Order: sequence, then C-alpha cells, then structure tokens
Amino acid sequence: MAARAATTDRPQAKAFRSELSPVSFLRRSAYVFPDKVAVVHGQRRVTYAEFDERVNRLASALIGTGVAPGERVAFLAPNIPALLEAHYGVPAAGAVLVPINTRLGVDEVSYILEHSGTRMVFADHELAHLVQDCPLPVVRIDDTGLPGDPYEDFLASGSAAHVEHAVADEEQTISINYTSGTTGRPKGVMYTYRGAYLNSLLEALQSHLRPESVQLWVVPMFHCNGWCFTWAVTAVGARHVCLRKVDAGAMWELFEREGITHYNAAPTVHLGVVTHPSAHRLERGLTVAIGGAPPSPTLLAKLSALNFIPVHVYGLTETYGPYTVCEPQEEWGRLSEEERALMLGRQGVHNIVADPIRVVDAEMHDVPRDGETMGEVVMRGNNVMKGYFEDPEATALAFAGGWFHSGDVGVMHADGYIELRDRKKDIIISGGENISTIEVENTICSHPAVLECAVVAIPDERWGERPKAFVALAEGQRASEQEIIDYCRERLARFKAPVAVEFGELPKTSTGKVQKYRLREREWAGREKRVN
Amino acid sequence: MAARAATTDRPQAKAFRSELSPVSFLRRSAYVFPDKVAVVHGQRRVTYAEFDERVNRLASALIGTGVAPGERVAFLAPNIPALLEAHYGVPAAGAVLVPINTRLGVDEVSYILEHSGTRMVFADHELAHLVQDCPLPVVRIDDTGLPGDPYEDFLASGSAAHVEHAVADEEQTISINYTSGTTGRPKGVMYTYRGAYLNSLLEALQSHLRPESVQLWVVPMFHCNGWCFTWAVTAVGARHVCLRKVDAGAMWELFEREGITHYNAAPTVHLGVVTHPSAHRLERGLTVAIGGAPPSPTLLAKLSALNFIPVHVYGLTETYGPYTVCEPQEEWGRLSEEERALMLGRQGVHNIVADPIRVVDAEMHDVPRDGETMGEVVMRGNNVMKGYFEDPEATALAFAGGWFHSGDVGVMHADGYIELRDRKKDIIISGGENISTIEVENTICSHPAVLECAVVAIPDERWGERPKAFVALAEGQRASEQEIIDYCRERLARFKAPVAVEFGELPKTSTGKVQKYRLREREWAGREKRVN
Repeated sequence: MAARAATTDRPQAKAFRSELSPVSFLRRSAYVFPDKVAVVHGQRRVTYAEFDERVNRLASALIGTGVAPGERVAFLAPNIPALLEAHYGVPAAGAVLVPINTRLGVDEVSYILEHSGTRMVFADHELAHLVQDCPLPVVRIDDTGLPGDPYEDFLASGSAAHVEHAVADEEQTISINYTSGTTGRPKGVMYTYRGAYLNSLLEALQSHLRPESVQLWVVPMFHCNGWCFTWAVTAVGARHVCLRKVDAGAMWELFEREGITHYNAAPTVHLGVVTHPSAHRLERGLTVAIGGAPPSPTLLAKLSALNFIPVHVYGLTETYGPYTVCEPQEEWGRLSEEERALMLGRQGVHNIVADPIRVVDAEMHDVPRDGETMGEVVMRGNNVMKGYFEDPEATALAFAGGWFHSGDVGVMHADGYIELRDRKKDIIISGGENISTIEVENTICSHPAVLECAVVAIPDERWGERPKAFVALAEGQRASEQEIIDYCRERLARFKAPVAVEFGELPKTSTGKVQKYRLREREWAGREKRVN
Repeated sequence: MAARAATTDRPQAKAFRSELSPVSFLRRSAYVFPDKVAVVHGQRRVTYAEFDERVNRLASALIGTGVAPGERVAFLAPNIPALLEAHYGVPAAGAVLVPINTRLGVDEVSYILEHSGTRMVFADHELAHLVQDCPLPVVRIDDTGLPGDPYEDFLASGSAAHVEHAVADEEQTISINYTSGTTGRPKGVMYTYRGAYLNSLLEALQSHLRPESVQLWVVPMFHCNGWCFTWAVTAVGARHVCLRKVDAGAMWELFEREGITHYNAAPTVHLGVVTHPSAHRLERGLTVAIGGAPPSPTLLAKLSALNFIPVHVYGLTETYGPYTVCEPQEEWGRLSEEERALMLGRQGVHNIVADPIRVVDAEMHDVPRDGETMGEVVMRGNNVMKGYFEDPEATALAFAGGWFHSGDVGVMHADGYIELRDRKKDIIISGGENISTIEVENTICSHPAVLECAVVAIPDERWGERPKAFVALAEGQRASEQEIIDYCRERLARFKAPVAVEFGELPKTSTGKVQKYRLREREWAGREKRVN
C-alpha cells in the first residue's frame, strides 16, 4: 500500500510548495499594511508600501548595474534604513548580501570584500574611508533619505515596479556574515533562505512579536542579520526604529517617544541601559532578548526590577544568532529573585525550530547531566549555517562528526538546560583543574561596586595558569584589589579566586564582547604561551 | 563568481538541515516542560513527559503489530487524548494518520477505510458500531485512561522508550483528511510534514500562543487536524483541554475552571456560546479563531462585547484549515462597532506562510479590486495540500492552471481583502444577476429576532431562480415571513430579497456547516435542476 501511495503522491507543478524566502515577509506586509509606518529613523517615517517600493528600486537598480544571480553585494553601515532595505533588495535581485562589521579596519574590510568576491559595495558616509581605495564600485550612503544622497540616487535609477522574486532552491545562500573573530582571518558564514525564514518565524514567536510591536534597533544588523529580526519584525508587520549609534540616553528617550516594545542587545549594552541616569521602572513591560555573551545574574535581576522582560538566548554567528532560549519555568516564580536570576542566567534549551543541543566530550559522548562536567557545546539542523564560504577545510573542521562545534565550553544541568562555562580558548587550567572564567566573573559582578569584569589566565610558575580579574567599577563606586579577592574567596573554591585585580575600562569588540585576547596578550607578552 | 560559490556551497551530511516534522514539537516540549500538565481531560491530567511516553508506546505498539512506513492508521474519535496522541504516535511510527469525521455513517466510514487502504482502526466506544463489521483490526478506545480500556492495553503493549523518528523527506504525507463533502464520495486530502509544520508555527504566531496558554478543544481534531492546533499548542508547550462533546454550558464552566485562553470554532458554535444563559463579559480576553463558514457581522459584534478577541480565518480542508486571516487595521479602531464588524467579517488576506490569495475569472485573470465583481478564490504554496489520495483526476482538476481551486466565490476589495460571496454551487442566478446568498444571510442575521439562517435558490418560472430564506429564530423571539422580507427589501437591492421565508432549525454537518443542499433538494424535488 505504501508503494501504491507513492505513485500518486505528487500533483503537477508542485502547487503545494513554495521555496521559503524571507523576502515574502516584506511582500505580504506591504500588501496587508501599505500605509502603516514600517521604518522610523529620526524624523523620517517610511510606510510599508514605501519600504517595498524602495526595495524594488534597490533590486532593479542592482540588476541594472549587472549584478548577476548569486553574486555578492556588500553593505558597510550602522543600523540605518539602507541596511534594512538591503536585507530584502539584495535577495530580491537574486544576489547574496554581505553585511560588514562596522568596527573593522581597512585591511579586514578589504579581505572580506576580496574573499567574498563582492561585486559592489554600499558604504555609510562615516565608513566610506574604509573602502576609498577599494577597486569595486562603491555607492556612498549619506543617510539623508533625500535626492543628492548617492544611495538615494542609486534607488532613483531603479524602478518602483514589483521585482519578481522566486528563489529556485531555498537552500541557496541569502547572506554571508563574516565572523568578527577576535583573531585570525574572518570566516564567511553562509545563511540559507530556508534557515533565515525559519529562524525569523521562530524569533517572532519567541519574542511575542505582533503587528503592534515596535522594535528598537540596538543589536547591529550586520551581526547575524540582526539575529534575524531584520526579517522577523517585518514578517508580522511590526515597526522598525533605526538608531545610528547605540546610546543609553537616546534609547530611554525613544522608549517613550516611539513606544518601543522590543529591543535586543548584548549584556554590556543592557548594563548601560539599566545603570543610566534616566533609568526608571517601566509601566508596560519591554521585551528584551539578551545574547552575544552570558548575562550575569546581577544584570538579569536589575532588568526585572525595571519591568524589562528578559528573553535570554544563546547562539553564534554560525547559528543565525539565537539557538537556545532559557525558557522560564512556572515554578521559578516561587524562587527568590536571586535564585531565579541564577536559573535565567543559564543558556537554556534548543528553541522550537532547532535540533536538541548537546554538550559532548572529545569522543562526542554526552557529558552527564550534573551541572559540573564540562564539554563542548555542539548543534545541528535548520538553525545552523550551511558552511563557511570558500573554506571547505574550516567547514569540515567545524562540522566534524556531523555536528557544528561551537567552541564554547558548557555543562548540562539535571533539567536539560545548558550553561556556558567558557570559550574553549578562554578556559583557565590551573594545576590540572579547569577554572570557568564565567563563573569567576559572575561572582565578581555580584559585588555591589562592580559594573563589569573579565577574567583571564596569567602565567604562574607553580600552577601553570592562575586567574586575574580586570574590573570596571560602577560610577561613584570604589573597591580595593584585596576586597575583590576576599569577596571571591568567600564564595568560590579557593583556587578559583583571582590572584590579581586590575581596575579600568575593558577592551571590547563592536558587538560588545570583551576582547579577552587583548588582556591575555599583555599578560603573556614575551612568553611562548597561546595568545588566541 | 556565482559558479565558484556553488562548488563549496554544501558541507557534508547536511548537518545544516533537518526535515521539518511536527513530531519534533512534542519531543521538545517533553524535554523542556516534562512536569507541566500538557493535556487535561475531565479529571485526568497528563504531563508532557507522560504525553511523550504514551506517544512512544503508541508508536512502538503500532510498529510491533506490523504497521509499515507509509501505511495508513485510522482514528474515529471525538476530541479526546487518544486522538491527540495519534497526531504524534502515528507519524512517529512512520505511518500516515487518517482521522475520520465522527458524524459519518457506516457506508462512508467503510468507504474511507477502504479507499485509504487503512491497515488498522482505533475507534471510540461510542463510535465502535461504525466499524463493527469492518475486516480490519480494530482497537476500541473506552476513554478511561485506565487498564482494561483496550486502547490503554494497546499502549501498554508498546515500549516507553524513545522511538527514533526521522522523516526522510518532509514532503511525505503525514495525514490524509477525508473531506466531509456535502455530496459525492469523500476525497482524501494529503497533508505533508512540511506543510503541517509551517502551518502549526503560523497558527501559534497568529493566535499568539505562549507556553502559558490553555486551549479548549472545540473544533474537531478530525477537521484539518484541528486546524493544525493539535501541533501548534504543543509546539509552544501550552496546554490542551479536551472535550468529548461541544456544549456551550460546559465551555463556560471550563473557561473559568481551566483558565482557558484560546479556542477555535465555526460561527454556529460561537453563536451558541455568546447566546448561552451563562454568557458574561470576560475579564481577561479570550482569543477565538473563527472559521469553517463566514461569521456574520452581528456575531463578531457580540463576541467583542463579551471581550472575546476574534481571529477571523478562512480556509478549507485542502489548505490545512486557515489560509487567510482578517488582519485588523489600526484605523478600524475609529469605526463604529457595526462598521468594524463589517470589516472584520471579510475573509481577509493570505497569512504569513501562505502565498498571496487570488480571486479570478474563468480565464484565471484577477477580478478588479472593486468589492463587487465575483470570481473564484484560488490559492497555492506551502499552505495547500499535496493532492487527493489515489485520485489523480480530482487532483488535476483541483489544481487546474497550477492553482488550487477552492470552489468558493468571492470579491476582492480595494484594500486587498477578500470577501466570500458564496460556494460556487450555492450562488443564485436570478434573471442573469448573481445573488450572493451570504450577503442576504448577513442582512437577515442582523435582524434582532434572528439566531441564524440559510438562503438557497428556489425555482422560478420567470427568473430561473429566486432566493428563499430558512430562518432559526433566537430563543423567545418572533418574526413573520413578511417582516423578514420587508427588512431585506429596505437594506438590499430588491431582486436580492427572499421571496419566501421558512422558520425552523437548520440542517448541519458535523463541523457546523449548514447543509444547503438538503434545503435545495426539497425545493427542487422532481425538477431537472442541479442539486449538488
């Protein structure tokens, strides 16, 4: 019978199947909500019909300049409408978007443009110097929205008419996102149309986006396509509020003025928001996804106190941004705020469209669910990249054993929630014992005088390595080195407490990650030890 | 460059792709929320871990009895836990679920079992007589949840161990849903794993399902797999509340006792709820999807008055249930309640995972967006069935021109929203003019004495056909034939007003659709005119 069924299983022309493409989200919202404001940028307000028209102009102008299907088009811009438009216009033209990290230098940008085989670059006026010697056609974006702005003139050269977009295979690449690796050459992470579509739907569902939602653009759009919210917000017909430069004061102003309901950011940005002089408890809840680095329980407690609803997610560029979510459990409501923050500070469980996440030992066996045994976090499925562009060796290495290797070290708790302990390269090995720098950092952060901190290995004659803490104090606060060390000794196994503390600002990447390698560099200068 | 990219586009083993399957939703919720109550049925409460275990038992027992991959397993049951479990256990066994309409007679059930090539049947004790002479193995479901219940004993014969489920191709059939066609042999609508997965995510997003949601089972699970909510509710880890028999009094009781936040039903069921003696304004909103037949503006106004939040959807068995949604527009908030109900009474726009819906003439050209020109509603894409099982002719006919033909007649409004005017076969042609029976029905329903009504064509010497109304009056209300006719003449073009009115209960299908063909049969008895 099964065999018989197979013969009539498929009707003609596959009218029952459309290739998944996030471009369809904009098409639908422009159809359903043509007059609704889709994008806000300062005084500019763009409706969904206008957004769609601008995307048609961008796509047709790209095709007009000879950009062929599958060719790469790069954008170098902060969170402005042009970069949002690129997320639809470039794929609508059949091309592949390469959004470039705005904090990179000329060399790195040149490398990415060359490695990706980019055909054409769009650069914000503040970043145009990074591509001034580049041999490719460059369109400058003055971000005025007015004629005379080269980007606007480029759009004007295109047609407002609907550009027919139908991707032939949803496993084609929609975007190549170069990782802002702290060292080594950036690698080009390939996202598929299918993966982008599924992850967008997931983010909309998981962050409870609705047509009346208003999303403030804080996480960079160049970072995992804004964790796929460039597409998710559009999918439900909600509103994007752009922001050239992340600034906690401006954010508080926009919360009120634009009725913000959602924003996403790394812990360091959230910390700036909750500690800003304008900070106050919000009447209506603000849903904020937190990712990019583990938030300290202290930060989570502060957010809750202001009526922010944290959605703690974890992932990497290789996983379209968020792969796990720390799903709150009903019984956590009965815990103390501190205990609850500890539960919420864990990276959690695979999201609805992701495959189950694993923490494995070197032989790919699952570590016990004891909350103690460390292993590497590995993932697979629709929430994982297709591979690194033009880098079969790195791809094969990353997918060894058929699973994507995150390079993150974590534990599996009894309830199936994972918790990160470290980046593989950050972990401290002291007298044969592993020390999780995150554990030490979370302890230090719970000290009332501390704003944020980073712990790295420093050389030690006897133990090989020992932890050292770099601490940024909260405004107006003071603490001594000994005080911090004693504070840790009271709360941690003695060998985990830092042997030294240095006060000052922390070096960070554009996405708010602390650059521990820079701190290590200084400490290990002149030694043969790894500085990666 | 595009060519160069293609060579390294795919890493080994497709670790970046999982075939979409709604079974993964249960697996995840059992992992994330093992101790949470997943299913409530009277006094029975089943956690997600237990739900998952029962599904493993069902799947392994099916495999144990020799059910092979792709073979069909039928269920004949009301909205009880066993039928919900079947939505996971049957596909987990690699088999295809055939949920059978419980209002059918022995002949129709036998036809479906034979046509589908079903291997094994599960039948609720109240329906067991329908399959007592059936040559297949039958497992009776006593719906006790206790040993001695043959269904429970069948589960006990299986293993609680995790059944590895991986569908080889997401375009395989997960369920065959026989249409409860008002005439003719039922046709087996094939749903794919992919379609079921995407539509489930869509429903969860569109009805704002969250882990804390509680869904009352009103729409039959055998009808489009409960509009895919069998899977959608599980996907977010929300709660299912089963109900053997739809009864407005029991529903009002459960709204309070179980904290219901969602239910879905046809207009006739909603009407029974809002007119029930227990009806009262709810403090917290109750999100209710309405579909299966067009709701009258009057019903929508009544729902809103009680703080129900209607989500008006439209679709067919062939479209996994809902295909369109009447997305509310912000500016409708400024309309009068009556005007707003008119807007909300339209079937609306394609949903986020569906392709744009069309209304076309006989040559497949789009009708003008004038809200007047009638045409056939056609659909395609991931929200449309794969075809009719073992019926290539009917499939080819339904997909003529590469679009699924709904058989529904509608108009396209200026804002891109569709509104149904009739089933193709219900429309009245009077003196060359088309009369939409839905338009006449909505007018009659706005009369304060009317509960519900149906309008059909009756023979007329001069005009060919003229409309006649069958009216059920609200409890304690009275109205005369002439009063109804005059009421329509004041509000409609004269030729659209009924020439006769008959009072009494309306004949209905199991899903609450009025069986107009029965009314026509009587009126056309002895004539050569169509009775379809």
